[in-house]
Amino acid sequence: MNIAVLGAGMVGRAIAKDLASNYNVTSFDLNENNLQLLSQHHTKIHTVSADLLDRSAYKDLLKDFRFVINAVPGFMGFETLKHLILLGKDIVDISFFPENALELHDLAVKNNVRAIVDCGVAPGMSNLILGRLNEEMKINSFECMVGGLPKLRRKPFEYKAPFSPIDVIEEYTRPARYVENGQIITRPALSDAEYVDVPGVGTLESFNTDGLRSILFTMNHIPNIKEKTLRYPGHIDLIRSLSMAGFFNEETIYVKGKDIRPIDVTCALLFKEWKLEEEEAELTVMTMKATGQKNEKAATVEYYLYDEYDAVTKTSSMSRTTGYTCNAAMQLLTNDHWKNAGVYPPELIGKDQKCFDLMLQYLAERNINYIRKNS
Amino acid sequence: MNIAVLGAGMVGRAIAKDLASNYNVTSFDLNENNLQLLSQHHTKIHTVSADLLDRSAYKDLLKDFRFVINAVPGFMGFETLKHLILLGKDIVDISFFPENALELHDLAVKNNVRAIVDCGVAPGMSNLILGRLNEEMKINSFECMVGGLPKLRRKPFEYKAPFSPIDVIEEYTRPARYVENGQIITRPALSDAEYVDVPGVGTLESFNTDGLRSILFTMNHIPNIKEKTLRYPGHIDLIRSLSMAGFFNEETIYVKGKDIRPIDVTCALLFKEWKLEEEEAELTVMTMKATGQKNEKAATVEYYLYDEYDAVTKTSSMSRTTGYTCNAAMQLLTNDHWKNAGVYPPELIGKDQKCFDLMLQYLAERNINYIRKNS
Repeated sequence: MNIAVLGAGMVGRAIAKDLASNYNVTSFDLNENNLQLLSQHHTKIHTVSADLLDRSAYKDLLKDFRFVINAVPGFMGFETLKHLILLGKDIVDISFFPENALELHDLAVKNNVRAIVDCGVAPGMSNLILGRLNEEMKINSFECMVGGLPKLRRKPFEYKAPFSPIDVIEEYTRPARYVENGQIITRPALSDAEYVDVPGVGTLESFNTDGLRSILFTMNHIPNIKEKTLRYPGHIDLIRSLSMAGFFNEETIYVKGKDIRPIDVTCALLFKEWKLEEEEAELTVMTMKATGQKNEKAATVEYYLYDEYDAVTKTSSMSRTTGYTCNAAMQLLTNDHWKNAGVYPPELIGKDQKCFDLMLQYLAERNINYIRKNS
Repeated sequence: MNIAVLGAGMVGRAIAKDLASNYNVTSFDLNENNLQLLSQHHTKIHTVSADLLDRSAYKDLLKDFRFVINAVPGFMGFETLKHLILLGKDIVDISFFPENALELHDLAVKNNVRAIVDCGVAPGMSNLILGRLNEEMKINSFECMVGGLPKLRRKPFEYKAPFSPIDVIEEYTRPARYVENGQIITRPALSDAEYVDVPGVGTLESFNTDGLRSILFTMNHIPNIKEKTLRYPGHIDLIRSLSMAGFFNEETIYVKGKDIRPIDVTCALLFKEWKLEEEEAELTVMTMKATGQKNEKAATVEYYLYDEYDAVTKTSSMSRTTGYTCNAAMQLLTNDHWKNAGVYPPELIGKDQKCFDLMLQYLAERNINYIRKNS
């Protein structure tokens, strides 16, 4: 069976390598270096140099593929997904574009396309688990906290990003929406910073980010839903200071004879400062807590994920937890466990016990364990 | 008696206004706005528009003046002082240039010029007091801590600078020298940060800056001398973070098609952030402590200064404490209490009890009180 992987960045490469043991995989990217990193050691994976912004070429490029994984950068994700739907492909999408994927639902139904979107950690597994718990119990409150962090803490940021600083800063500046008492509340980014003791990691700082996405609409019967991001303590205070002092400003200023946007200079500096080095150990941690009622009794269910860089395969935890979740969803399509045409975020997949179990099993086989605790 | 004041910046204007009650004062500046601020309300003060970088014009410009105050920006201070010496003027210098003023001593002696330099708070009064205490006792250790701070603490920096951010950052990046066990020790800028409770201000943070200047050479028989700068807690951590992340870098980087130095963008942003507004209240605080022996007994002498913005005359504390000290030194020249030709920093003036007393008296008359405590 053939699978096309669009995008051979860090996560896209991990996806291709993982899939290659069960499928014929072809990776597409414009960046020759990315492709070389794949073909060098993985002769089973085909690589194709292609400008994926040129959507008119998709029809030819992808003619041998029914299954496609969309792992392109976020800014081009939505249009890519749309064109894949028009071509009738079955898709798992982890491009995390800013647009609302559900707007493409009707188009997917019309083209008899199955598309599972937002299939990483959060969004991704947090949605899947919420969707499952929502079948089991009457949820009054769901809170998810998630962070990807370097194992080595280096001042001043104690942070590394496997993607562009501009995307991180966007997350740090966009107002955060969550659900409180049945209302969608908008709060400033970085608000409600508070310390939290996380098993295996120590004290981290949690703060609001706008991560709920589709959940705001698909789970709007749950009165309280919140997602917070986790960083080492102090990071957010520094980010807030930079923001207040104007280092994230997008308006052009005139400096020594040149017009320049402060944000561009800041991103150039942070790119170096936040660069995740090859073979640099990092971790992913996520906690979820649902409280409510089960059989008319108070019930609490928690899930906990802790994952680390895999030194043997030299795969980052970010790639493992995101990429393998994507692949776990892909198996639902190739094996026809998920049958519904349309665009589906993971909370709707999670309603299906079998699909849920298969995904957790797929991850567990790769030593990514979501540990459940009932109380 | 005529006095010329070169420079009509914030401090230069306060100097001119204060001198105008006893002398005929003429202020020189290239900036018409600075001059207007003076002439508007102070018809007794003459103002002359002049480019003070054009030293060939000094002879004509200053032909009616024997006494000159050098209050130009630091970068042009040394050359200005040198040319004033060549013209035979008696000078008080508060331009705080980076070069070593003592190199001009012989030239001043040769031209029969009396020049008192570094005549502000620190350098300035800290030197004067050390020079006096050095006559009274055998000093084993002298420590001075000094800061100029806004009264209103606003995040993230809780700091305002009445001068250019580049000069402040220079102070934050230049390695700091102090004297320990008779040796000149060089430590990184911002090192040895520690909290200190300062009367009337609360807890501040002190850290090493390179402020000792002439004292390193004139007082080199004292085994331990240290100067530290004071800021509200948190300021230095943020400065250090900016520094580590590259925001003070002077090497050009390429950003979106343009070559730019991060430090220039940072200064442009901090200029706004640190701008001391008209009529914004600020304070000056300084503590000094000398320990050693007096009459073969252990002795400690402390001095303490606390000064605030004067809302009546709308004069900043920075201007008061710096400018009036400069004027206190000028009276020593006009009244011939200081007779020695040459370049003298205040610690050498302080050896003279009469000069010391006159300066403190001049300041006390303006409600700037250096409070002494013996123990």
